Amino acid sequence: MFSLDLTKQDGRHLTLYSRRAIDPTITAPSPFAEPLNASPHLRWHPLRGEWVTYAAYRQGRTFLPPPEFNPLAVTTDPAYPTEVPAGDWDVAVFDNRFPSLAVPSAEPPVLIVPTAPASGYCEVVVFTQDPQASLGKLPLAHIGLLLQVWGDRTAKLARRGGIAYVLPFENRGAEVGVTLHHPHGQIYAYPVVPPVPARIQQEAQRHYAETGRGVLQDLIGKELREGTRIIYAGSHAVAFVPVCARYPYEVWVAPIEPVESFNHLSAEQRADLARALKTVLLKYDDLWQRPFPYLMAWYQAPTDGKAHPESHLHAEFYPPYRTRDRLKYLAGTEIAAGFFAMDALPEEKARELQQVEIMLE
Amino acid sequence: MFSLDLTKQDGRHLTLYSRRAIDPTITAPSPFAEPLNASPHLRWHPLRGEWVTYAAYRQGRTFLPPPEFNPLAVTTDPAYPTEVPAGDWDVAVFDNRFPSLAVPSAEPPVLIVPTAPASGYCEVVVFTQDPQASLGKLPLAHIGLLLQVWGDRTAKLARRGGIAYVLPFENRGAEVGVTLHHPHGQIYAYPVVPPVPARIQQEAQRHYAETGRGVLQDLIGKELREGTRIIYAGSHAVAFVPVCARYPYEVWVAPIEPVESFNHLSAEQRADLARALKTVLLKYDDLWQRPFPYLMAWYQAPTDGKAHPESHLHAEFYPPYRTRDRLKYLAGTEIAAGFFAMDALPEEKARELQQVEIMLE
Repeated sequence: MFSLDLTKQDGRHLTLYSRRAIDPTITAPSPFAEPLNASPHLRWHPLRGEWVTYAAYRQGRTFLPPPEFNPLAVTTDPAYPTEVPAGDWDVAVFDNRFPSLAVPSAEPPVLIVPTAPASGYCEVVVFTQDPQASLGKLPLAHIGLLLQVWGDRTAKLARRGGIAYVLPFENRGAEVGVTLHHPHGQIYAYPVVPPVPARIQQEAQRHYAETGRGVLQDLIGKELREGTRIIYAGSHAVAFVPVCARYPYEVWVAPIEPVESFNHLSAEQRADLARALKTVLLKYDDLWQRPFPYLMAWYQAPTDGKAHPESHLHAEFYPPYRTRDRLKYLAGTEIAAGFFAMDALPEEKARELQQVEIMLE
Repeated sequence: MFSLDLTKQDGRHLTLYSRRAIDPTITAPSPFAEPLNASPHLRWHPLRGEWVTYAAYRQGRTFLPPPEFNPLAVTTDPAYPTEVPAGDWDVAVFDNRFPSLAVPSAEPPVLIVPTAPASGYCEVVVFTQDPQASLGKLPLAHIGLLLQVWGDRTAKLARRGGIAYVLPFENRGAEVGVTLHHPHGQIYAYPVVPPVPARIQQEAQRHYAETGRGVLQDLIGKELREGTRIIYAGSHAVAFVPVCARYPYEVWVAPIEPVESFNHLSAEQRADLARALKTVLLKYDDLWQRPFPYLMAWYQAPTDGKAHPESHLHAEFYPPYRTRDRLKYLAGTEIAAGFFAMDALPEEKARELQQVEIMLE
């Protein structure tokens, strides 16, 4: 993997990644001229025992782009600089211009609850130069590169200090609020382990202390032996509708053996994980012959420098549809109680996805 | 408060509540003839350490009602029985025909994770006979009666046994997935304390053990002293945008002093809580001169029969809009990490609601 680190005129970082050498004379465009002046802050929620981040930006845009302007496409007209340059690269990563977490430039306000600087990083990951592509349509080697990029970002962000957890994710589709349809994801680097990963770590540590094995490792073993809900089973990676799915078309993608984070994947594991991921994405899009919206989140070990044998890198997909025409709204019981109610069985939804035939390459 | 307990032909319970005596000859209609044959089951989610409930119902309707049919309106044509009878009543409560939790009629399946019967109750609460009304438009005495009804349901459901937590809530508006616009809410009675109330209890118990005071009691004291985010301050009840709001127009409504559940409210507290609640609802609807969608959840003490001096009955409103035209989508960081990101300050949103002038009665 080749990479090139650049800095935009407004001070934001841009890194280009490629399977081929990158022209070192490429420079970083930016739709924004003034330096980013971000000072998000955290407030403590005393009832839930968690932090909430606040970032109120004026929409300080330096020009008004045409409505069809795609800031994630490569810059072709210098009068309308986008976020990424032309050139031979596969994946680009840059600092979000409107981050929820940032290196703070001011003290947090004094309030009636504890506050803190919302230190951290929010990055945008452009999956490909092709605005018409999608993650699932990319070649396996390109998806494998992206898995390496997520690993490189995790390591680089953790190395800057003060980062407890790195979460790569993709929101896909207007149904989950996405307005830019160019294939891209995001990475959040948090100053604390957020509530959901903290809960996952707690349960994994308990299971590991009791059994000496990973909780996801044991579940994957059982899912593979039973087979009913398996979507992909390779020699190193697996994809399945989990027996305890909380969303009708929920799918998990993981290496079969526990791997604590992206950078611990062997080349063989990474290649098979790319096959598992692409399989799921192609089946999703083929199911109803249209782009399938989802939230994809990648869970890995906290970045506290310690060994995490209990952690097991994996992706969870939460699609918003429960049938072709009906959305699953998170309402009373899910949002207010955190208690998920499903009106479909994971076994039925797994069967639907199993029956979709796809060609991997 | 007067009440009348009835049973529908399909075996479901219906209770009518009124501020006046109720005609004891009223009978309970039902759009369904066959007994409810519900066997939802729970599956253990080993990564998150929580239960998920599964209820797969065939849509076994006994007749095809006209599209404009409102099952929550009073029955006027015996050929099309609705869920509630005609007669002089204010609030009606009946068992949901498609419950996520129910008295199980079959053993849970044996699976690769622990399973259990999804024991519990799901009730529908019809707030009024008037399909054109809304909770906020009801007279204060009617809202006060509803607070009593929630208390009565909590006590009655807990008394049936096996119930750890009772959560009354309302999903309002198509934006949160509501298809029936007749004013109504729901009550879930859970066999376990669900994750969010469990977390709230844990934090409240910690604070109470450390200080001998309620965590919400202390926050309300500080909110009242500062005043910036207060929407209603009465002698017994308060409404405010909390300093740690996770939704732009989030509002909490509570008695000022800690009261552990609905049935512990004094008449004066209940009357003022109704004023606080009505104030918030009228301001919401007046803000953009249109019905304001929200999820309203009422948190109270677990129903384990123990004293809960750490618990503080209150409602939390989560409205889905962040501006008049833009929804706040829960996406990557909120759903996958449980870490909420706000692009508006609670102080600004409180000011907007403070400036809405309303007439209480």
